[in-house]
Amino acid sequence: MMNQAILSNTKTFFCLFLFIYLPTYLFAQHTQLSGMDQLQWEKVLPGVWKASIGKLKLNALDYTSGPKVEAIKKLGEADFPFSKTETYHHKTPSRIGVRLPLEKEEKIYGLGLEFEGINRRKQVYTLKVDHYGGVKGYTHAPVPFYLSSKGYGVLINSPQRVKIHLGVGNRKDSQLPQAVDRTTGGSAWSARPLSDAVEASAIGTGMEVYVFAGNTLLEVVQRYNLYGGGGVLPPKWGLGFWHRVHTQSADQDVYQEIADFKKYNFPLDVIGLEPGWQDFAYPCSYDWDSTRFPKPEAFVRKLSQQGIKVNLWENPYVATTSSMYESIKPYTASHTVWLGEVPDYTLPSAQEVLLAHHQKNHLDIGISGYKFDEVDGYDFWLWPDHATFPSGHDAVEIRQLYGIIIQYLFQEQLKKQNKRSYNLVRSSYIGASDKSSVIYSDYYKHRPYVTALANASLAGLLWTPEIRSATSAEEWIRRFQTVSFSPLMMLNAWYSGTKPWSFPEVTDMVREVILLRKRLLPYLYTAFYEYQSSGIPPFRAMVLEQGFVPDEKLVGGQLDDIANPYAELKRLEVSDQYMMGPSLLVAPVFTGEKSRKVVLPKGKWYDFYTGEYVGDGETISLEAQLDKIPLFVKDGGIIPMIAAGEDLNSTAPKLEVRHYGTQANRYLLYNDDGESYNFEKGQYSITEFQVEYLKNGRPQGKSKAITANQSYYNPELEWKWMTSKER
Amino acid sequence: MMNQAILSNTKTFFCLFLFIYLPTYLFAQHTQLSGMDQLQWEKVLPGVWKASIGKLKLNALDYTSGPKVEAIKKLGEADFPFSKTETYHHKTPSRIGVRLPLEKEEKIYGLGLEFEGINRRKQVYTLKVDHYGGVKGYTHAPVPFYLSSKGYGVLINSPQRVKIHLGVGNRKDSQLPQAVDRTTGGSAWSARPLSDAVEASAIGTGMEVYVFAGNTLLEVVQRYNLYGGGGVLPPKWGLGFWHRVHTQSADQDVYQEIADFKKYNFPLDVIGLEPGWQDFAYPCSYDWDSTRFPKPEAFVRKLSQQGIKVNLWENPYVATTSSMYESIKPYTASHTVWLGEVPDYTLPSAQEVLLAHHQKNHLDIGISGYKFDEVDGYDFWLWPDHATFPSGHDAVEIRQLYGIIIQYLFQEQLKKQNKRSYNLVRSSYIGASDKSSVIYSDYYKHRPYVTALANASLAGLLWTPEIRSATSAEEWIRRFQTVSFSPLMMLNAWYSGTKPWSFPEVTDMVREVILLRKRLLPYLYTAFYEYQSSGIPPFRAMVLEQGFVPDEKLVGGQLDDIANPYAELKRLEVSDQYMMGPSLLVAPVFTGEKSRKVVLPKGKWYDFYTGEYVGDGETISLEAQLDKIPLFVKDGGIIPMIAAGEDLNSTAPKLEVRHYGTQANRYLLYNDDGESYNFEKGQYSITEFQVEYLKNGRPQGKSKAITANQSYYNPELEWKWMTSKER
Repeated sequence: MMNQAILSNTKTFFCLFLFIYLPTYLFAQHTQLSGMDQLQWEKVLPGVWKASIGKLKLNALDYTSGPKVEAIKKLGEADFPFSKTETYHHKTPSRIGVRLPLEKEEKIYGLGLEFEGINRRKQVYTLKVDHYGGVKGYTHAPVPFYLSSKGYGVLINSPQRVKIHLGVGNRKDSQLPQAVDRTTGGSAWSARPLSDAVEASAIGTGMEVYVFAGNTLLEVVQRYNLYGGGGVLPPKWGLGFWHRVHTQSADQDVYQEIADFKKYNFPLDVIGLEPGWQDFAYPCSYDWDSTRFPKPEAFVRKLSQQGIKVNLWENPYVATTSSMYESIKPYTASHTVWLGEVPDYTLPSAQEVLLAHHQKNHLDIGISGYKFDEVDGYDFWLWPDHATFPSGHDAVEIRQLYGIIIQYLFQEQLKKQNKRSYNLVRSSYIGASDKSSVIYSDYYKHRPYVTALANASLAGLLWTPEIRSATSAEEWIRRFQTVSFSPLMMLNAWYSGTKPWSFPEVTDMVREVILLRKRLLPYLYTAFYEYQSSGIPPFRAMVLEQGFVPDEKLVGGQLDDIANPYAELKRLEVSDQYMMGPSLLVAPVFTGEKSRKVVLPKGKWYDFYTGEYVGDGETISLEAQLDKIPLFVKDGGIIPMIAAGEDLNSTAPKLEVRHYGTQANRYLLYNDDGESYNFEKGQYSITEFQVEYLKNGRPQGKSKAITANQSYYNPELEWKWMTSKER
Repeated sequence: MMNQAILSNTKTFFCLFLFIYLPTYLFAQHTQLSGMDQLQWEKVLPGVWKASIGKLKLNALDYTSGPKVEAIKKLGEADFPFSKTETYHHKTPSRIGVRLPLEKEEKIYGLGLEFEGINRRKQVYTLKVDHYGGVKGYTHAPVPFYLSSKGYGVLINSPQRVKIHLGVGNRKDSQLPQAVDRTTGGSAWSARPLSDAVEASAIGTGMEVYVFAGNTLLEVVQRYNLYGGGGVLPPKWGLGFWHRVHTQSADQDVYQEIADFKKYNFPLDVIGLEPGWQDFAYPCSYDWDSTRFPKPEAFVRKLSQQGIKVNLWENPYVATTSSMYESIKPYTASHTVWLGEVPDYTLPSAQEVLLAHHQKNHLDIGISGYKFDEVDGYDFWLWPDHATFPSGHDAVEIRQLYGIIIQYLFQEQLKKQNKRSYNLVRSSYIGASDKSSVIYSDYYKHRPYVTALANASLAGLLWTPEIRSATSAEEWIRRFQTVSFSPLMMLNAWYSGTKPWSFPEVTDMVREVILLRKRLLPYLYTAFYEYQSSGIPPFRAMVLEQGFVPDEKLVGGQLDDIANPYAELKRLEVSDQYMMGPSLLVAPVFTGEKSRKVVLPKGKWYDFYTGEYVGDGETISLEAQLDKIPLFVKDGGIIPMIAAGEDLNSTAPKLEVRHYGTQANRYLLYNDDGESYNFEKGQYSITEFQVEYLKNGRPQGKSKAITANQSYYNPELEWKWMTSKER
C-alpha cells in the first residue's frame, strides 16, 4: 500500500509536471520577451479580433461603409488562429511595434499591390504609398494586411508607413535557431535565419491590429473585405470597353473617335478625357476648356445618347485659375504640388468645396466618374513628409490616405444620387474593397501586371493592366487579352493616340477578345455581386483556390563576391495565372512565348473554348495560340454568357449557359438594373441554374427564378454542353 | 515755402517708403512663412554658425576629436552666407523640419558617399546608412552636409535619417514661379518647378544646423573637416599595397602568398585576413581559429619582420561562442544579427568589453587594425528600426552612428598607445574626416566607383575602389590604375582568391602602377598632412578646384508614356576625374574605352609622364593607353617622389623632385616617423622646395629645412625638369 502510495505520488508528480509545470514553463518562455507587453484582444465580430495600442488620429476604416455585420456572421464563428500570449507590442523612442507568432511552415501573402512574387516570407517591406519602382513596399496601394497559409489574416491598421518584417529578424529572447559558422558551414549558413515572428512597426503613438480567421484563406479575405464594407458592385457599363483619348483631344476629335469605333465595329462603353478637357492642368482647374469643349453638357448628352459614359482625368492639386481656388484656399497644405495647392480633404469644409464644384460642373451634366491621378507617388513633386495641413494631421498620414479619402468622398456623393460609378485611381490603402475604383500605374511590364492583378485580390484591391502602346502586333494582342480578363478593360491612349485597331494584323483578334469579355458580363457581374455581398474577389490569386498547391522553388544560393555576396536563394513562384469568378482560370500568354505552363488546382479542368479535359491537379504545358488567351473551367462549371449574335447593349439579351465537365452543379445568376443602388433595397434578381444527370447519363439544365423580381435577361436561354456533347 | 514743405514731405514720405517701409514689407514677406519659426544662429568659430532646435540625444560630433580651433581661426572671418531671416524651422506631428534659402543659380554638392552625379539640386534624398543599391540617399556613408556653388556648406546634424529636398518642392507662401498648363505649355512645363529653398526634416525632437562659410568651396570643406577634428594622417604603411587573402586561408597559406608576392616582385604592405581567422564568424567570436592560426602572435611577428602589417576582418555581431560573449551580453540590443548579439556601443561598459578583448587578443600581439564589415546595411539582416537598446537610444540612431562609433573607439584606443592606424569600414557618417578608416562596399561598378571617390571628398570621407575580380585583363589593369590613385590601394580576394598577377598579359603594367603609387608617397603623405592640419582632402572632386567649370548638360525631356511620362530632363556631368594632392589631376580610363575626355580647370596643364603641355581651361580628348592612367599636372606643380631604383621600404630614400610647366613655385614637403602621434608634439619635418627662374630662363630648384627636425629623407635629391627640359 505504501509503495502504491509512493508510486501514485510519483505518478501524480509526473502528471503535475507534464500538465501543469511544463506548460507553465513553456508558457513562461513565451511571455517573457523583454520590454514588450502582451496585446489585449477584443472580439469584434465572429472570426474578427482587434487589439489597440494608443489611439489612431487618422483611420482608413473611417472612410469605408463599415462592417457588413450580417455577412460576417453568416461566415460563422472561428477560433483565434494563434496563441494570444505570444502577441506583443512595445514602444521605442520613435516607433510603435507589434510582434505576432509565426510557425516554421507558414507562408505569407498579401501587403497590397505588389508586382513581384506571392509568398512574402523572409522579406521586409516599408509600406509607403508611392509609385512602384523597386523599393520593397513602395507601391500605389500598399496595404498592411497579410495572410498566412495557415489560414488567417492580420491587418496592421496605421495611417503611417508600416515597416514589416515577415519571418526575418530574430530577437535574442526568441526561439533562436542554431548559429552556423559561415567559413565552414557551407549552405547551412543563411543570411536570413529562420525567424518565429512577424514584427511590424510605425512612427507615432497609435496602432490597431486586427486578426481575421477563416476555414479557408478565401474566407479570411472575405472577412477582411466584409469588415471594410464588402466588395464593390460596379455599374454594368464599367465592365465594358474603355478608351481614353489623347490629352489634347477636343469634342470633335472625340466624335471622330466614336465614329471610328463604329467603322471598325468595336464596342465602346466609356470615353476617358485626359488633362486637356480642363482649361488648366498640372495643377488643375477642374473647369472645362472652352476651346476644346465649348458645350460640355451637350457633349456629354450626345455621348450618353450613344450609350457612352464620360470619365474625367484629374489630379488633386488646385490651380490658382480654378473656379474653386478661392473657396478651397483656406483649407490647403503648406506646400504645393506642381505649384497647385493641396487641399486637406480630411476637413469637411474642404470636402464640401470639392464636391460642390464637381457636382455642379461635372456630375450634374452627366459625367460618370473620374480618373484620380497623382495621389500616389514621387517625392520629387508630391508634398514633403514635413508639410503641414490645416487639420493638424501628419503629412505622411494624409499622403497614405489621400487616394482612399477621395474615392470615398465621390462614392458617397454619387450614392446620395442613387448612382453607382466606376473610376480609376492611382493610390489606395486599407479599406479599399468597397470603393468603386480600379488602380492603374505608369509602370508597364506585362508579366508583373498579371502578378499585381493576382496580388490585388489579397488586399481588397482591383487593378487594371491597362494598355498604352506596344512595340509589336503580338504584344498588342497579348496585352488586350490580359486586360479583357481584368477588372477594367481599357486602352489608355492619352499620349500615344493608339486605337484598338492600331495593329491591323491582329485587329480581328483584339475585337474578338473584347467581345468575349462583353459576352461574359452575366458571369462577371454575378462574380462582382459575390464580391459585394460576400467579399469574394471576382479576380483572385491562385492561393485563394481550394486544391491549389503553390509551386514554389528556391534556386541559386551560389556565393559570388560581385553578384551574390551573401549566397542568397531566389524564390521562383507561379504568379502568372489567376481565377475570374467561381470557375474560370485565366493564364495569359506573354510576348515571345511559344508555350506556357499552367498549374491546375486539384479536380478536373476543361478548356474553355473546346470543353476538352486538360488535367487534374497537375502542371500542364500548352502551345500558345496568338488568337486565344488560355482559359480553363473547373469541373461542373456553369458559365452564363450573352448568346452569340445578341445585341451586347440590350438590357434583356438572350443567354447561352455553358456547362463544363461531368459534374452536376448549381449556379445562382445575379442581375439588377446595372446602375443604381436599388439592389440594396432588394431590387435584384437571382436565377438558379441547375445541372443534373439523367439516368441515361445525359445532362439536363434547369433554370428557376429565386427572387420575386424579373430576371432582366431574356428568359429564353440556350444550354450548351461543352464537355458532355463529346460523350 | 509751403509748396517746398509739401514737396519735401512728399519726398520724405517717398524716402520713408523706399528705405523703411518697402524693405520692411519685403522683409515681412520673408519672415511670414506660416507655421514656421526663424532659426536662431550662434557664431561658434570664425565662419561657423550653429542653430539648435530641441536637443540631440545622440550626437555624431561627440565621436570626433573636436574642432581644430586654431586651424579654423587661421582661415579667418567670413560673412554668414545668406539671409538669417530666411532660415526657418518647424515641427509636424512626427518630424522636425528646417528651411534655408536657395538662389536660382546655386548648385548643390555633397551628401556623402554618392555613386551618381555631382550636382544634387532638384533631388530628394533620404540619408540612411545602408548598402548602396538604388534608393536615393541610401548609402554606406550618407552625410547630411551639403555644399552650395555659392560658397557655403550646411550640416544638418541629426542622428536620424534626414530627408532633404534640394531646391525641389514649393511652399505656397514662398516665391512661386508661374504655373504652366501642361496640355499647351510644351517644354515650359516642368515636373519640378524652380524652388527657392532647401528643406530638410527628420523624425524626433532634436536637430542642429551648422553653416560653414569660406572664400572658396574648398575652404568651406576645410572648415567642415576641421570642425570635426581635421583630416586623418594615416601611417605610411596604410598608403602601401594591401592584399586580402581568401577567407579560408591558414597561416601557411599566407606565408605562401607572401612568398608569391616576392616571386612576382610585387610590394606588399598589409595582409588582410577575412572571416576565417576566427573560430566562428557571422556572428563573430573575435577569437583566433586554432586550426588555421595556431600561433597568432608568432604569425603576426613573422609578418612584421617582413614589414607586413596584419588587418583583421570582423563584424560587430557577437557569437555565443565568443570569449567576450558573457561580458558583452548585458549590453546588447533586443534583436540579433545573424543570430549574434548586437552590442550597444554607446554604453561605456560595452566599449570597455570590446576594447579589452581586442586589446588582449589582437592589438597586444601587433594587429594593425580592422576591416569593420556589416555596419551599414540590408534591413533583411540588420536589427529592425523597432529594436531596443539598453542605453534607451533609438535603434535608427544607433544604426546611423554605429560605424562612426566603432571607428572612434579603436582610434582612441590606439592613440593611447601612440599608434596610428588605417582601417576599412563599411559605414560612416557626420564627423568622419578625423577617422583612420576608408569606406568600401559590395558594389562593384568601376565608373560609379570613381564618382564616389570624388563625392567622398565633399563630406570628409575616404573611399576605396577596391578590386575583387575582373572579367578581362583590360578590366584588371583599369581597376588597378584607379585603386592605385585612391586613398587605399587594395586587392580584396576574400572569395575570388585572385592575385595581382592573375592576368599575366598585364602583370607588368599592374606592378608598374603600384610602384608609381608607392614612389609618390612623399607627395601623397604630404597631401594627407594637409588633410590632417588644414582639412584639405587629399583626393578631391573637381568642383573644389579653382578654375574648374563644371560641364553640366541637361538632355532628354521628350515625353514618353512608358519611359518618361513626366518629360523629365536628365543631367550629364563630369564625375569621372578628380584631384590627388595639390597639383595632380587623375582621369581613369574604363574598360572598353579607346579615348576619353578630360575637363581641365583654367591654367596650363601638363602630362605627368612626359611633361608636355596639354591644355588650359578646356576639354581635351586623349587616346587611351592600356599601360597608363592619364595624369595631369598643374602649371608649376612640384611633385616629390621616391627616386627610381630606391628601396621603397627605406626610411630615408633619395627623392626625385619633379617640376612641371613654366611657373615658379614653392612646395612644402611634410615628413615624420610615419606611424606614431609624435607629430602632434612637433616631431615632424617640413622641407621647402623652391623653384625659381634664372635670368637665362632656366629653372633652379632649392630645398631648405623649415623645421628643426631632420627630414627623414635622404637630403641628396634629384630635380627633374619635366617641361623645362624641352626648352
